[in-house]
Amino acid sequence: MLGRLNHVAIAVPDLAAATATYRDTLGAKVSQPQALAEHGVTVVFVDLGNTKVELLEPLGETSPIAGFLAKNPSGGMHHICYEVDDIIAARDRLAGEGARVLGDGEPKTGAHGKPVLFLHPKDFVGTLVELEQA
Amino acid sequence: MLGRLNHVAIAVPDLAAATATYRDTLGAKVSQPQALAEHGVTVVFVDLGNTKVELLEPLGETSPIAGFLAKNPSGGMHHICYEVDDIIAARDRLAGEGARVLGDGEPKTGAHGKPVLFLHPKDFVGTLVELEQA
Repeated sequence: MLGRLNHVAIAVPDLAAATATYRDTLGAKVSQPQALAEHGVTVVFVDLGNTKVELLEPLGETSPIAGFLAKNPSGGMHHICYEVDDIIAARDRLAGEGARVLGDGEPKTGAHGKPVLFLHPKDFVGTLVELEQA
Repeated sequence: MLGRLNHVAIAVPDLAAATATYRDTLGAKVSQPQALAEHGVTVVFVDLGNTKVELLEPLGETSPIAGFLAKNPSGGMHHICYEVDDIIAARDRLAGEGARVLGDGEPKTGAHGKPVLFLHPKDFVGTLVELEQA
């Protein structure tokens, strides 16, 4: 079922500083920042050739990464996103295995315009997992 | 400078259980466990096609991931490994930018038999970064 690693998301308190770290210190190829108001984040994509890192800064009053940054003020790895061919089939398989899908269990449209679901970290060795229909 | 994402390492308290989660619940292709005594971990590789996840369980009394698991008993993302062409050139560039290389600053032989260095999380938006000469 599990496909490619789509991205690793790193929550950061200061997107400009984090982008400079990846671009200038590490010499990586980074995108322009994109404000995704409906997701409560501004994102910069770091192109690694085989996959990407997404640097996420909170946007708005109810950003889903605000709580994480309150606990991790320097930033840190927030979630990992795996691709699946069929997100409904993936969800039903996971539910059948007893894994918890976050929210109402229905896919949302993710930052790349594709259907996504998030899975409970406690069911996935302490890691928040996003599934994206590739 | 920065090349491909070589792997994301997830520290886990119970490698057999974590492997079962990835293999049976998520349907991923996983390796047999490999004990790496000199690194203080037992590792299972999760093959994602474009890159891999490494599930790490402490091995021995002085495992480098023991402290992380004491703080994160369910497990969690421990570090991210990027490839570089020339690890000495990378180190010297990073040192010139003021970034801290962990240990004595000399590359060690990593879990894949290649030279690696670790970089201070506080200089890389809260994320422990491994560089591996590809």
